[in-house]
Amino acid sequence: MEPSSWTGDARPAGTPVAVVLPAGGSGERLGGATPKQFCAVQGRPLVSYTVQAMERISWISDIIVVVSSEKIETMKAIIEKYGHKRVMIVKGGITRHRSIFNGLKVFTENEFSNHLLQKPEVVIIHDAVRPFVEEDILSKVVMAAKEHGAAGAIRPLVSTVIASAADGCLDHSLERAKYRASEMPQAFLFDIIYEAYQQCTDYDLDYGTECLHLALKYCKTNAKLVEGTADLWKVTYKRDLYAAESIIKDNLSQQVCVITDVKEAAAQVGFLLHESLKSQIKVESISVCLSKNDSHLQNILSGQCYNFVCVNDKKHALQETQQVVDMLEKSNIPLLYPVVLILVLLDISENISFSIGMEELSRIKKFAREVKNENILVYGLLIQCKDHLLLQDTVNSAAALILALIKDRNPELVGQLLVA
Amino acid sequence: MEPSSWTGDARPAGTPVAVVLPAGGSGERLGGATPKQFCAVQGRPLVSYTVQAMERISWISDIIVVVSSEKIETMKAIIEKYGHKRVMIVKGGITRHRSIFNGLKVFTENEFSNHLLQKPEVVIIHDAVRPFVEEDILSKVVMAAKEHGAAGAIRPLVSTVIASAADGCLDHSLERAKYRASEMPQAFLFDIIYEAYQQCTDYDLDYGTECLHLALKYCKTNAKLVEGTADLWKVTYKRDLYAAESIIKDNLSQQVCVITDVKEAAAQVGFLLHESLKSQIKVESISVCLSKNDSHLQNILSGQCYNFVCVNDKKHALQETQQVVDMLEKSNIPLLYPVVLILVLLDISENISFSIGMEELSRIKKFAREVKNENILVYGLLIQCKDHLLLQDTVNSAAALILALIKDRNPELVGQLLVA
Repeated sequence: MEPSSWTGDARPAGTPVAVVLPAGGSGERLGGATPKQFCAVQGRPLVSYTVQAMERISWISDIIVVVSSEKIETMKAIIEKYGHKRVMIVKGGITRHRSIFNGLKVFTENEFSNHLLQKPEVVIIHDAVRPFVEEDILSKVVMAAKEHGAAGAIRPLVSTVIASAADGCLDHSLERAKYRASEMPQAFLFDIIYEAYQQCTDYDLDYGTECLHLALKYCKTNAKLVEGTADLWKVTYKRDLYAAESIIKDNLSQQVCVITDVKEAAAQVGFLLHESLKSQIKVESISVCLSKNDSHLQNILSGQCYNFVCVNDKKHALQETQQVVDMLEKSNIPLLYPVVLILVLLDISENISFSIGMEELSRIKKFAREVKNENILVYGLLIQCKDHLLLQDTVNSAAALILALIKDRNPELVGQLLVA
Repeated sequence: MEPSSWTGDARPAGTPVAVVLPAGGSGERLGGATPKQFCAVQGRPLVSYTVQAMERISWISDIIVVVSSEKIETMKAIIEKYGHKRVMIVKGGITRHRSIFNGLKVFTENEFSNHLLQKPEVVIIHDAVRPFVEEDILSKVVMAAKEHGAAGAIRPLVSTVIASAADGCLDHSLERAKYRASEMPQAFLFDIIYEAYQQCTDYDLDYGTECLHLALKYCKTNAKLVEGTADLWKVTYKRDLYAAESIIKDNLSQQVCVITDVKEAAAQVGFLLHESLKSQIKVESISVCLSKNDSHLQNILSGQCYNFVCVNDKKHALQETQQVVDMLEKSNIPLLYPVVLILVLLDISENISFSIGMEELSRIKKFAREVKNENILVYGLLIQCKDHLLLQDTVNSAAALILALIKDRNPELVGQLLVA
């Protein structure tokens, strides 16, 4: 993971900060057997995205993930598979508050950890099912917690809140403008939230859900409320998983790298493709002889681009694409997100009755099947170049297909050869 | 639209019921230029889905859609394009309450309508941006409103609700179990809600949002609260549009109809495809000589199936597919939802070096482009049948591609020929 690039003045540099991520929920509201934090989004469990969101922030020292005992092995496997660092797994309790309390004890009691972790000055409490949290709001709640002892993100209410009477009828409705939804992240001076948990009753631990409330009740700490952005939403229902999937696909479709063979026809098509694509997506173009292992290409790879178009003449297509695959495999990009790799074949033959042989199709399919295991999605795209008058139209249609493939990232269609 | 099939005892038969749909909001929270109720989902504006949800219910007499003056022409065009019935458009006010009040006046004041509509006993108030409302909850709020004068759907709170003090710090948090989110639909005896609007102050009309509150304050009517299901959610943010799109795609992908030519090879592949598909999707299969204009096929079309697979031998493929297109165009199905039509070509030649000619590809593309304008998405799929030992594998792979095409409904990929 690259270090955080955030360097604003309010950065909590020098303050030891840890995160507790309760991930023990059963996800009943989702209506599926798998708790939502372990549901796959683009092939990867949601909790891994949330861990990644914390891990990329350099000033967060430890990430404590609290899971139910039957999910400990699953969580270990996730951390190993995706290479997460600075993460400790802790066994949860039977309620949210008990799980968070267990997470905090990692810093104070030997039984929860082989070696006691260094007690942080500020602890962030977040949800495993809010993967889109940004550094900005984390930094704001940490700074506010340093000043006020506690802080939490809030959002405007979407619906009116009402109280019902014993007969199931409306008693009164709250004036929407005076209330807010309490969201995550929240942050606390460690000593305050830990004391609140030590003092609170079993009733609090069993039926409460709000950490800000505990800090107020047991430590007289009025948390500072910080306006959060809309992306703090919590994945609660199945529709939220759909939304998360679409948002992540959207984020992955912001940039494409066009890698063009230095040969003449390829270079021309590569240039036209770049021009046609650039009105709709950020395009990086490189002309390379791939065998030279271009360092510019490696820079782009480490810059987290997830989409590649290789423009080749037909003969060396698979061979040169294999080199891009090799470079991708050396980076950890296909590990975290599926990478789209579009193999553009140029048909420059003058023969009007050009046709695609089944053997060629089978070769592309076989190659695509193999690299799919590495989380690289390969699609073929044929561009006919023999009629120069039609070339611009064909390239525009190729660009539309490239954008569609990138946006969809459909693993079932790998190895197919589309025709522009 | 087919009449509602709901025939429970609590059906509000005999009670005159109308709906007011406020659709005048500006959709600021969505962050786009188009108000969310006019954003396209699978090509059709969201408000049309909500109107459709009301229209299919036989016991609802009139649907009053309230839009801002600059959207009246847009709304008229939507009603005409999608053939909505029993809808009247009314010009909205500057706030939600003023818009709803205008909607109610259609039944009482001549200035809002050329001919006064018959005053309903019960009026439902719903949101244009809650398209997934079911007949069951509508029926429940109507019956409860008949008994109690007013009724509204509620949901559990997703977040804790808090009150902030003047200094931006937490004042207190509400005990989550005692409160509910007030959602839509709501229903009222017409005379009660109309009187409440007549009596309420300008302040209420300008700053209030909750109809249940007006009925309580001005008519002393304590609304009955009815537990709603999760699909009453409101499309508020961009992520909600993503979710709506996925849910609608999901709903459209529940069933496929496999239409098989009566000839021998086609019949065999059609049978194997049916077997392979049926573990994952509901499959209807018909063997037809399409020229005979089969009535069974027309029954399926009117049964709202949105996905068709035509298995043909290569020679007559386009010709026979054209007949399915003709039948679809006669129904109003492609009007409301994009229909997926997969043209399966069988390669039964013994020639090992089989190849697909560019001319053939161009013909499929041209055909697909033409019918795309009719909201029919045509894709080609080649199944090789020459090696009988591999046929089952090939059919399984074809079934996977069919499911992927149906689930994705990607308009950019129409006219492409995939190979199983």
